Amino acid sequence: MSLVLHEYARSGNCYKIRLTAALLALPLERREYDIMKGETRTSEFLAGINANGRIPVLQVEDRFIPESNAACFYLADGTPLIPEDRFDRADMLRWMFFEQYNHEPNVATLRFWYGWVGQENWTDVQRAQLPGKRVAGEAALRLMDEHLARHPYLVGARMSLADIALYAYSHVAEDGGFRLADYPNVQAWLGRVAATPGHITIDA
Amino acid sequence: MSLVLHEYARSGNCYKIRLTAALLALPLERREYDIMKGETRTSEFLAGINANGRIPVLQVEDRFIPESNAACFYLADGTPLIPEDRFDRADMLRWMFFEQYNHEPNVATLRFWYGWVGQENWTDVQRAQLPGKRVAGEAALRLMDEHLARHPYLVGARMSLADIALYAYSHVAEDGGFRLADYPNVQAWLGRVAATPGHITIDA
Repeated sequence: MSLVLHEYARSGNCYKIRLTAALLALPLERREYDIMKGETRTSEFLAGINANGRIPVLQVEDRFIPESNAACFYLADGTPLIPEDRFDRADMLRWMFFEQYNHEPNVATLRFWYGWVGQENWTDVQRAQLPGKRVAGEAALRLMDEHLARHPYLVGARMSLADIALYAYSHVAEDGGFRLADYPNVQAWLGRVAATPGHITIDA
Repeated sequence: MSLVLHEYARSGNCYKIRLTAALLALPLERREYDIMKGETRTSEFLAGINANGRIPVLQVEDRFIPESNAACFYLADGTPLIPEDRFDRADMLRWMFFEQYNHEPNVATLRFWYGWVGQENWTDVQRAQLPGKRVAGEAALRLMDEHLARHPYLVGARMSLADIALYAYSHVAEDGGFRLADYPNVQAWLGRVAATPGHITIDA
């Protein structure tokens, strides 16, 4: 099975897929696109890779899966990274949808605004949204922290895709001005995920 | 198996779960919370139903699944609403993550701002965000329209949870000021979904 990851390496969404592949020892060919130069908005990319103009996209032979969490699900389908129990499987997806709805648009977006856009270049709309995104990002991290006070991983007693999905941007949350010291259970869990055999870092 | 839906009936996210249950002929007990009165933010709700303070939540015996698309996955697991083919299953999730990231925060949010908040009550932050949400909502509907020009359903040749997830807020998109006539393939697909045996309407 030929697997190609169309990516921008520093994106946490792309890292999720690399981390999943690494934990499953699946070889992944990587193709880099510079999102800051609009390389995912070219007519070629839109027509051939993803009409939504975004990375990551996982290519499986000649077919394409956009959306990071869907790509992780494809790679891990049938492996222990997806719980066999029906309730736990849905519960894993619950955290993955939470990640895309409550966590990524706040924790990842502020990382991007600070680290890529730069404060001096923020638009008025971005400035207006900042306080709401700060509050919502903190709420997402607090929700995780309260859950992880009572559980070693997000679902059940072992690592699943839920942990990979939420690890990706949580472990670099300070890039967006969040303070991980405020979430000690998240910090301990980040350490557990990082210590998993086969783990790779975002810059690997 | 006892299934209880904690919901606000007019929410499209809650409707997804009712529609999935109806298509699978699963009985669902319904409990209504008035989100406009903060009934999902009480300490009782946060402690007992969902720490994230949101509906819908699917209760399975004494356990809870927040996130509408995860709840639909639980109900449909092992049924034809989830494709058996590995690629198609991931592709279904791709559309469901697209729904929560690109569609719902724009198409559903504007429906809520117009129909529940009311233009005269919009905050400055909401006014600032409106043009961006209009453009992003239109882009999401256009992406669906282009895909549905070549395919009868979002994944493969039959209905899956991807169609249910995206039907919920697409069919009421005009409540948020979108014009469905601009998306004829979406309109035809809405008709196909509505004609499915067992289909129920959002106000059923």
